[in-house]
Amino acid sequence: MFSKNKIKFINSLKKTKYRDEHKLFFAEGEKLADELLKSGIKITNILATKEWLDINSKKINQRKIEIDEITENNLLKISSLSTPNKVFVIAEQPQNVYTTEDISQKLCLLLDDINDPGNLGTIIRIADWFGIQDIFCTPTSVGLYNPKVVQSTMGAICRVRVHYVEFESLINSVKDYPDFSIYGTFLEGNTIYNEPLAKKGFIILGSESHGISDKLKPLITKKLYIPSFPVGEASSESLNISVAAAIVCSEFRRRVISTQNASKP
Amino acid sequence: MFSKNKIKFINSLKKTKYRDEHKLFFAEGEKLADELLKSGIKITNILATKEWLDINSKKINQRKIEIDEITENNLLKISSLSTPNKVFVIAEQPQNVYTTEDISQKLCLLLDDINDPGNLGTIIRIADWFGIQDIFCTPTSVGLYNPKVVQSTMGAICRVRVHYVEFESLINSVKDYPDFSIYGTFLEGNTIYNEPLAKKGFIILGSESHGISDKLKPLITKKLYIPSFPVGEASSESLNISVAAAIVCSEFRRRVISTQNASKP
Repeated sequence: MFSKNKIKFINSLKKTKYRDEHKLFFAEGEKLADELLKSGIKITNILATKEWLDINSKKINQRKIEIDEITENNLLKISSLSTPNKVFVIAEQPQNVYTTEDISQKLCLLLDDINDPGNLGTIIRIADWFGIQDIFCTPTSVGLYNPKVVQSTMGAICRVRVHYVEFESLINSVKDYPDFSIYGTFLEGNTIYNEPLAKKGFIILGSESHGISDKLKPLITKKLYIPSFPVGEASSESLNISVAAAIVCSEFRRRVISTQNASKP
Repeated sequence: MFSKNKIKFINSLKKTKYRDEHKLFFAEGEKLADELLKSGIKITNILATKEWLDINSKKINQRKIEIDEITENNLLKISSLSTPNKVFVIAEQPQNVYTTEDISQKLCLLLDDINDPGNLGTIIRIADWFGIQDIFCTPTSVGLYNPKVVQSTMGAICRVRVHYVEFESLINSVKDYPDFSIYGTFLEGNTIYNEPLAKKGFIILGSESHGISDKLKPLITKKLYIPSFPVGEASSESLNISVAAAIVCSEFRRRVISTQNASKP
C-alpha cells in the first residue's frame, strides 16, 4: 500500500544516515530497474506505474518483492529526479568483499578522495566497460549509494564492486606480490603512451582539487602523465578525474588488445 | 552601482533569450575570471568581493570594465552556483568564425545533438587539452553560453571555438580535401586502437540517447569503435559521450606523439 508512512520512509532513504541504518538504497528509471532485476542484488520494493508493471510482470512474479502500483503524480512525491521515469526500486546494499589474493592478480582503480557523485558514477561505468571489477575509495569519499552516484552508473553499479578502505594498508597488503605495480597520474609523470603497462596493478587517481595525497606518493612505483597536445604547449591545466580515468583505462586495455592482435597467426 | 535594476538585468542573463539579445554571457569564480582576463574576450562587468578586487586590481585597472564591489550576500543574489566564489564576470559573446580552408587542415570534433551542458563543457575542456581548436554542434544542441556549460569548461571556453552549423553542408564543404577523413564512433565500427588515424579530419560523436543520426551515417568514411574489455564480453551498453570524446581524442593524439618519439634520433 502506498501510504503516507511509506512516502516518509522512502524520503528518509535520501539521507546517508538512514540508508546505512537500513542497509538499503534506491534506484530510478527503466534502465536501472532492468539492470537490478538481472543482477544478484536483493530488491525489497518496486513502486511503478501500471504500464511498467504490465510489461515487467514476468520478471518480478516469482520473487519476494513488495510491489506498489503508483501514478506518475505519486512517483513525483518520492523521486529525486526532475523527470521521474516509471519505476522506483529499493534494494539491499550488497556487501562488497574482496580478497588480497584476488585483487593482486587484477587491475583495480583507487580513487583518492573523490567527492563529486557524478564523477564516481561515471568512473564506475568506465570501469565496467573496461572490465575492472574492483574500485577502492578512501573512507572520506562520496558514498556509493548517494542517489546521484547510483543514477549516473547507468546500471554498472550492479557489476562493479566499490570498497571503502584506507589506502596505505591496502597498498601495503599487495605491493610485494610479483610484478604488481602501483601506478599514479602526475603532472611530472612519464608519458603514459610510452610506458610499459601491465595487466594487473593499482591505478591511483587523485581528486581534482588536491591531486594524489602526499602520504600516498611514496608508495607509487610508476608515475604516469597524460600529455596535452601539442606536447609542451599551454592549455587547460588539468583533466577532470573521470576523463583521466577513461583515458588511463583505455590505454591499459589497448596494450592487452594490441598484444592479442599481434600474436594472432 | 549595485542596484535592483542591475540584479534584474543580471538575472535576465540566465535565460538564453536575453543572453542572445544582448550578446552577453556570464562566468563565475576565480578560475574562470582569471582565464577571461587573460583571453581576448571583452569583459563588460565584474562584480566581486573586496578581497578579489584588491588582489586583481592590476589586471583590471587599464580596461573599460564596469566594476562593482559587492558582498558575499549580494553575490548570492546573482549567482547561479550553490556556493558563489568571490567574482561574477559579464562578457561579450565572442563571434567564433572559421574558414573551410583552415578546418580542412585540422582535427575537429562534431557533436551530433549534444544536450547535456556538463557533457559539452567537459568536451570543450578535453578539446583544449588535446589541442583541438574547433568544435561543431548541430543548431539544436545545448547552447555554448548556458551557465552550466561555461562553468564546466573551467576556462577552456576562452580557447576553443564552438560553432553551431548544419553538419551535412559542413561535411560536404571539406570532404573532398586531400586525405581528409570523416570519422564516427559506432558499435559496429573497427577497433580504434588498430585503425590508421590521421592528424586532420572530422570526428563525429553521436548523442548518448540517439547515436549518430541516420542522415550523417552515409557521410562517414571511417567507422571507429572503442572496444570494451575483455573484448566481446557484456558490460555497460555504452560510454558517456564525454568519456568517448576523451578516449578518441587521446588515441588520435597518441599516434602523433608516438610517431614523433619514434622518429627522434
